[in-house]
Amino acid sequence: MRDPDLWRELGQQLRVDAVRTSAEVGSGHPTSSMSAADLAAVLLAEHFRYDFDNPKSSANDRLVFSKGHASPLVYGLFRAAGALSEEELMTYRQFGSRLEGHPTPALPWVDVATGSLGQGLPIGVGMAIAGKRLDRLPFRVWVICGDSEMAEGSMWEAAEHAAFYELDNLTAIIDVNRLGQRGETMHGWDLSSYSERLRAFGWHAIEINGHDVERIDAAYREAESVAGKPTAVVAKTIKGKGYSKVEDQPGWHGKAVAEEAVDELGGIRNIKVDVPKPEAGERHRFDAAGTPAWPSYDVGDKVATRKAYGEALAALGGEDPEVVALDGEVSNSTYAEIFRDAHPERFFEMYIAEQQMAAAAVGIQVLGWKPFASTFAAFWTRAYDFVRMAAISRATLKLCGSHAGVSIGEDGPSQMALEDLAAFRAVNGSTVLYPCDGNQAATLVRAMAELNGISFLRTTRADTPVIYEAGEDFSIGGSKTVRSSDDDDVTVVAAGITVHEALKAADTLAGEEISLRVIDCYSVKPIDAETLRSLSTPIVTAEDHWAEGGLGEAVLAALAEQDEHPPVTILAVRELPHSGKPAELLAAAGIDADAIAAAARALVKSPVRA
Amino acid sequence: MRDPDLWRELGQQLRVDAVRTSAEVGSGHPTSSMSAADLAAVLLAEHFRYDFDNPKSSANDRLVFSKGHASPLVYGLFRAAGALSEEELMTYRQFGSRLEGHPTPALPWVDVATGSLGQGLPIGVGMAIAGKRLDRLPFRVWVICGDSEMAEGSMWEAAEHAAFYELDNLTAIIDVNRLGQRGETMHGWDLSSYSERLRAFGWHAIEINGHDVERIDAAYREAESVAGKPTAVVAKTIKGKGYSKVEDQPGWHGKAVAEEAVDELGGIRNIKVDVPKPEAGERHRFDAAGTPAWPSYDVGDKVATRKAYGEALAALGGEDPEVVALDGEVSNSTYAEIFRDAHPERFFEMYIAEQQMAAAAVGIQVLGWKPFASTFAAFWTRAYDFVRMAAISRATLKLCGSHAGVSIGEDGPSQMALEDLAAFRAVNGSTVLYPCDGNQAATLVRAMAELNGISFLRTTRADTPVIYEAGEDFSIGGSKTVRSSDDDDVTVVAAGITVHEALKAADTLAGEEISLRVIDCYSVKPIDAETLRSLSTPIVTAEDHWAEGGLGEAVLAALAEQDEHPPVTILAVRELPHSGKPAELLAAAGIDADAIAAAARALVKSPVRA
Repeated sequence: MRDPDLWRELGQQLRVDAVRTSAEVGSGHPTSSMSAADLAAVLLAEHFRYDFDNPKSSANDRLVFSKGHASPLVYGLFRAAGALSEEELMTYRQFGSRLEGHPTPALPWVDVATGSLGQGLPIGVGMAIAGKRLDRLPFRVWVICGDSEMAEGSMWEAAEHAAFYELDNLTAIIDVNRLGQRGETMHGWDLSSYSERLRAFGWHAIEINGHDVERIDAAYREAESVAGKPTAVVAKTIKGKGYSKVEDQPGWHGKAVAEEAVDELGGIRNIKVDVPKPEAGERHRFDAAGTPAWPSYDVGDKVATRKAYGEALAALGGEDPEVVALDGEVSNSTYAEIFRDAHPERFFEMYIAEQQMAAAAVGIQVLGWKPFASTFAAFWTRAYDFVRMAAISRATLKLCGSHAGVSIGEDGPSQMALEDLAAFRAVNGSTVLYPCDGNQAATLVRAMAELNGISFLRTTRADTPVIYEAGEDFSIGGSKTVRSSDDDDVTVVAAGITVHEALKAADTLAGEEISLRVIDCYSVKPIDAETLRSLSTPIVTAEDHWAEGGLGEAVLAALAEQDEHPPVTILAVRELPHSGKPAELLAAAGIDADAIAAAARALVKSPVRA
Repeated sequence: MRDPDLWRELGQQLRVDAVRTSAEVGSGHPTSSMSAADLAAVLLAEHFRYDFDNPKSSANDRLVFSKGHASPLVYGLFRAAGALSEEELMTYRQFGSRLEGHPTPALPWVDVATGSLGQGLPIGVGMAIAGKRLDRLPFRVWVICGDSEMAEGSMWEAAEHAAFYELDNLTAIIDVNRLGQRGETMHGWDLSSYSERLRAFGWHAIEINGHDVERIDAAYREAESVAGKPTAVVAKTIKGKGYSKVEDQPGWHGKAVAEEAVDELGGIRNIKVDVPKPEAGERHRFDAAGTPAWPSYDVGDKVATRKAYGEALAALGGEDPEVVALDGEVSNSTYAEIFRDAHPERFFEMYIAEQQMAAAAVGIQVLGWKPFASTFAAFWTRAYDFVRMAAISRATLKLCGSHAGVSIGEDGPSQMALEDLAAFRAVNGSTVLYPCDGNQAATLVRAMAELNGISFLRTTRADTPVIYEAGEDFSIGGSKTVRSSDDDDVTVVAAGITVHEALKAADTLAGEEISLRVIDCYSVKPIDAETLRSLSTPIVTAEDHWAEGGLGEAVLAALAEQDEHPPVTILAVRELPHSGKPAELLAAAGIDADAIAAAARALVKSPVRA
């Protein structure tokens, strides 16, 4: 039942609550909440379909606050919906509270963490893709965006993909309050700046006064009725609306306002909105065809680990109907195309938009799917902020980066991932895997499907020898000692391409009566600390990666607290590489068999340790 | 003198050269070069103003191949201009050649490395900003873009900023050859998809047939005449144009084509274009006002290092008229606003567009300016690919990231940089600095001005005690031992906020007759390996950063090769932090004074080492 008076009152309640919570703790973003309060009120009271007792239901509408700093508004909505108590509301920003400075899934009704601007809308695109193409359920995705964050390119990646995928289940509500953190935005209150851009990108756009609740309701209704394209509600609003001292004033971003604002807003209200539950709906289930067959490579044959990734992923898709794949317009290089051909309904081409790809994967996993996303490992740097935030979202993503290191050869340094191990290791709760052969890569792909959190698989461009039998076990956190004797002189800890170089070095040194132990440290994080700590020989680490933050430092960290540990020589890339043949580049970087052998010889000559 | 026949012949020459070079090495991107050959030919023959003998001249036009994979076309242009010999041309992609798989400044006529798509146009925006607002010279910036890369959000950040800054000296030439790496782009040959979007963003856009040289010339002329806005020439082209076997065919991206194409293209040509030099022009020189005064803080006072950054940068701007500052809409938090207020003509607001900010800085430094760019350290992750590529560009950037670590408090994890040390350490040739007090921060800002390559300064939100006298020396690669005695039991290696925690721990432990040495390791990269290697006590490292890739691992790497080194306990953030007061969060993360003291006690109890 449409009740504009209720909407207006609810808007005031949300403002009052934003003021109260921020005043209590002395920080937060009340003014950014107050501008969007009417937009949020009408949404909650009239359009949102959600079962607060069953927040993970695929039937629910999803609400994403892309402008995450408006968290007081988020929490006020939850109180108005009866999900959050007055008592808990007032714990905002306090240590131990679920009501963090920016929303996180510490609260069950928050699907994803926001607060790095420009991420909520691309994540919403992922949710809406899931709704239309995976779940095939009629839920709607509502994303409340700030005007400042429209300067982020990721918002336009989202605009592009939302239109391309015809996401008429997606509504972006743009709270044009004119003021950013330090002053006016590029476009101020020129609503057409936003609506014309969005229309050019293929959206339906509606300009409204964001404090006119009846106009807001009409716009949402219009959005619900538009077919074949997403809708943007571009709303002119006033930052700090309702408290005359701060309305439309610069200098009030991210600052608590005086409690006197509560009086001006008409005092505390306790409106309770009975949010309707969505119609029950079962999500679509894909037929797990059981094809293609699981890949298996013969020892001694050559296969690129990137190829094994694609083949294993396609097979995994036949085993597990929840597996989904995305790729950034390089599926013929990452070999995600093998999955695409096997399971076209579960493959999403994200074009050259790595931020949107990561965000879409985050949105898709919210609905319970298992997204694997791939591009060149170097280009995952483009989405690093999205991966960082995905970890704060407690998201489960399976990411693959191909073309690691200088071993790619002629394409040159722009295409060579040399920082990906460092970057992905420094993601909270991440798993970092780096296989050296096809069977290992395939097994690790299967293991990734069951991992929680962010996992990353680093694959190699070149065909490399298969050294493991198909079906061999590779546990997360484990390693394989691929060459050893009872009296090893030096141990090489390698991963990926350098395992093969280490084996060649071991062959060379065997002729010099130097015995090299070779450990394949395919699980870079978690690392096999137990095995590493048991070593009594000097150690050489070898990696096709910068010296900083990669395999070598991971090994050092595993050994750090020991009272005694052997000297460690880190072989890694230390100078800017160029184009050339893979072997030339491995040699130039000092990470090939010759370099490993030389480092091992030098350590043998050093004093023997206990 | 307009000579369409010459332009057409030059276009064919460029195609032939792309075919020849790629065929010689058996890889590369001839087809992507052939689509843009006519666009490039008319530019070189008729519009480009450049002194090939003086490539660094600020008077030169700049040419950026945003579609860097079209490197054979770049090199063919240089041969046509007489800058590159036939012999060197044929070294394309070979080890030791300057003609890499994607263009890099190994060649003096290449300003920036490209090859990570979507970066050339935002870099061009930086160059054009420099031209209009810093150099104040009439050079033009020409950027040749691919259609695939228009999917990158960074291209739309560039579109937004180019219009906002009214960059009528910038022309984007969009080579719409319809085909990406693995198939058709989102928009195929629908030129209006691009032109309408760009017009909505405030550009002048011209749609043309990209193989009609007279139309190309007219479009460039029109671009040169448009005032107050940038122009895009949106050109319909054919991938592989000129070789019938591959024209407009999928499956030919990044592949050499047969040399028979040379015959179909009419054979090898040796046209030499006499590219006109630009009119001589001196770049604008800003008055180095000598103000504001260099900041100086009294020992015992409290100041945030972020504030010291802003004050020092403003003072530096008064000393050095080439210093420029950019900020991502948070200048009241990073304190770049102090520079803005002191030197408004040299400050550029980049709004919430960190990729464009990094790219603009790259473009600006090409012209010889010294850009300092700042945002929250957490949000530098947004631009990580741009920083990675900037290192390949041999760019000199001074980056500042504020609000490091859990010590920011209530805003929560989305705003906390906990991976920035790892990320910036893993950048080729980088310098990573992390001051703990205002005087140190100020001195390091001055030092950054003289550094080559990518330097990063990590600043803290909170006010922290000043512990160093103003004017104290802090060398890059150095450290300060801030507490020591002749018989220290344990050494704490700290940086930034943890220096203060370590000093508190030392005070506490002094009462327990445990003597703590405290090292302020403000230069995280390069690190003071000599001092670290000289330690004979057990070591505790303490950092407000994830355990991976940060200070602790940098310390371990410095000690790795030693035959003997003490056990090292790494104190770092290991669990997802939440909101709370700074002190609560430092304690929860186990990096406060109590945690440091506890770790030191545990090490004292362990067996004494030599």
